[in-house]
Amino acid sequence: MKHRFENHDLVTERASQLIDVTDDVRGAVERAEIVNGMVLVYSPHTTCAIVINELENGFLEDFGELLDELAPADGRYYRHDDLGIRTQGIEDDTADFPNGHSHVRTGLLSSSSQTIPVVDGELMLGTWQRIFFCELDRSRSRKVFIQVIGE
Amino acid sequence: MKHRFENHDLVTERASQLIDVTDDVRGAVERAEIVNGMVLVYSPHTTCAIVINELENGFLEDFGELLDELAPADGRYYRHDDLGIRTQGIEDDTADFPNGHSHVRTGLLSSSSQTIPVVDGELMLGTWQRIFFCELDRSRSRKVFIQVIGE
Amino acid sequence: MKHRFENHDLVTERASQLIDVTDDVRGAVERAEIVNGMVLVYSPHTTCAIVINELENGFLEDFGELLDELAPADGRYYRHDDLGIRTQGIEDDTADFPNGHSHVRTGLLSSSSQTIPVVDGELMLGTWQRIFFCELDRSRSRKVFIQVIGE
Repeated sequence: MKHRFENHDLVTERASQLIDVTDDVRGAVERAEIVNGMVLVYSPHTTCAIVINELENGFLEDFGELLDELAPADGRYYRHDDLGIRTQGIEDDTADFPNGHSHVRTGLLSSSSQTIPVVDGELMLGTWQRIFFCELDRSRSRKVFIQVIGE
Repeated sequence: MKHRFENHDLVTERASQLIDVTDDVRGAVERAEIVNGMVLVYSPHTTCAIVINELENGFLEDFGELLDELAPADGRYYRHDDLGIRTQGIEDDTADFPNGHSHVRTGLLSSSSQTIPVVDGELMLGTWQRIFFCELDRSRSRKVFIQVIGE
Repeated sequence: MKHRFENHDLVTERASQLIDVTDDVRGAVERAEIVNGMVLVYSPHTTCAIVINELENGFLEDFGELLDELAPADGRYYRHDDLGIRTQGIEDDTADFPNGHSHVRTGLLSSSSQTIPVVDGELMLGTWQRIFFCELDRSRSRKVFIQVIGE
């Protein structure tokens, strides 16, 4: 079994930003030099997700709007942001940047990773599919892990 | 490492249709002749998902109803359907079949694939679990990719 | 390819309970004695999910609250709970414990499993990431499957 692991660093700019990492993934698959196998695209963050969808600006905004509606950043109470209740918080910057909404949005998507087949050396994405790193918090330094296994 | 890849063609009939592909997956696992490994069931479409749940007609309708409530097909504005805004659209049939709701529903589920363990030659689904191809757009010709790896 | 499969039994206590199974997963990875590969954490149930997020009590409650709002247990009609409509139900305990809301919540999360890379023997979770078994029904006896592949 061949194995290749890459970390790609990203800097996100804003909540609900979707960053197209398809070329990063395709590059890692090529460098892994496998014929058949799979690639795992993984976010090691608790307020991000990996999403597969179409690269179309209208959709990118629609999606952020829906998340903001289902789990609003403003005007909704989150225990995670209540410094009197939460079990962690002394050491971090919750007081300045409450992100309870980011955590429940991440829970709602529940997609810390996406796995895509690789067949005959080709990443088997559909015609319109692109792989996105999805920021559900604010502008942050992030990592996306790309792991290829196969032979 | 053994590897088997199959594409199964489907024709869906309507939005929110869940098509049971469990037997397709089970067949591919048998044909792969592996003892231990995993099977990846993958949708190469931007308005579909792979879902694991119970094959019970009441649930199948409840699920479509909830999606229609969270991201309505009618009565909600999607930039993706606005031909003056969207970045793609000249070449496709968006004017006739707006599907902004389909894209955000796909984003909300964020499950282009499901992975199931195979142990001692057996697909490790729970008693009530079935694997569904979930149409989030209208009636379309679709593909479901089934990839088995193991040994 | 090395392969290790473990079933861990759990007893959940209540709806929306998130049980931290990170140590179970870490233990299985160690016992698998692989250097590079991946671990698949899988729920064989139709009313549960596997979720990765932060172990913080405020979030754990926020998440249950959001699910209860999006797909309420009370005050919403589910065909799945209608004994005159549903296609299964004679043999189970739906009359006593209607769980239509549990099924659609499971569908909404659509995360029967999570996959995490293992690199140089290390489970590649981010600093704040923990793996949770998520009960979306009532108190039940449950299983979580942990499968490690690699070499």
